[in-house]
Amino acid sequence: MINAGAKVDNELPTISLKAVGIVRNEIKQSPIQGWGKVVSEIVVDPSLTEALDNLDEFSHIIVLYWMHQHSPGQPPTKVHPRGNREVPLKGVFATRSPNRPNPVGKATVRLLQRQSNILTVEGLDAIDGTPVIDIKPYIPGYDSADSARVPQWITEE
Amino acid sequence: MINAGAKVDNELPTISLKAVGIVRNEIKQSPIQGWGKVVSEIVVDPSLTEALDNLDEFSHIIVLYWMHQHSPGQPPTKVHPRGNREVPLKGVFATRSPNRPNPVGKATVRLLQRQSNILTVEGLDAIDGTPVIDIKPYIPGYDSADSARVPQWITEE
Repeated sequence: MINAGAKVDNELPTISLKAVGIVRNEIKQSPIQGWGKVVSEIVVDPSLTEALDNLDEFSHIIVLYWMHQHSPGQPPTKVHPRGNREVPLKGVFATRSPNRPNPVGKATVRLLQRQSNILTVEGLDAIDGTPVIDIKPYIPGYDSADSARVPQWITEE
Repeated sequence: MINAGAKVDNELPTISLKAVGIVRNEIKQSPIQGWGKVVSEIVVDPSLTEALDNLDEFSHIIVLYWMHQHSPGQPPTKVHPRGNREVPLKGVFATRSPNRPNPVGKATVRLLQRQSNILTVEGLDAIDGTPVIDIKPYIPGYDSADSARVPQWITEE
């Protein structure tokens, strides 16, 4: 088992990527309650403007972003969901906490408008200045799961 | 406009991250048809084993992975969806093509089992040896969108 573990760790590569855009909105600090109605602009690298063509044929998009206020590295392996100490500690991969080994966020948001290299979206839970890593169309069936089961603590306040 | 564009580009950071696990399955080359029934193991860095606790309380998980056969950099801004030349070129951000500026894949998969640092999942569309960047619980409502609209070409064969 120890050998198997070491073998995996040796294979884990370091990955380098460059942000493709930046989030612009009125939210300067996280967390807030009720991201659902927040309207944000995603300002995309102008050299990638053409890569956004056809995106506005979709009502919803998936945004992958870098939660830059949280450093990668050695976060705690267990956290209280939503910082609520009344909920017992859970493995961080079982939560959406930004305190995770790679602080990449993933949001499904409504695309309100695309103008040139700027996307206007609703419901993106990322603060002003957040780097965007990737933008994808949301495809029901591929991105959604019917009758998914979740534990009660994930939705408890 | 040129100044605005230059400003955005100057702000786009380079991001470094380390894979947290590796995909193990029988698929040595992409693409294949019908990933839906492919069973894969995700072998996670043993130092992160505890971070997987509670994940098996969810029926489905989201896997972010690095499509390592596709280099980041300057891919085409337009592609034929699924490589099908009968479908006109589309902006790459409007497709799920791996030929994208940051080749990060995002899959929603069924979690069949968790044993120590190994997750067994069904439907992960990643080949053997793919580095995994992040693992998240799938949360209906947050990760799904009701009545999402997509263009016809996204599902055409």
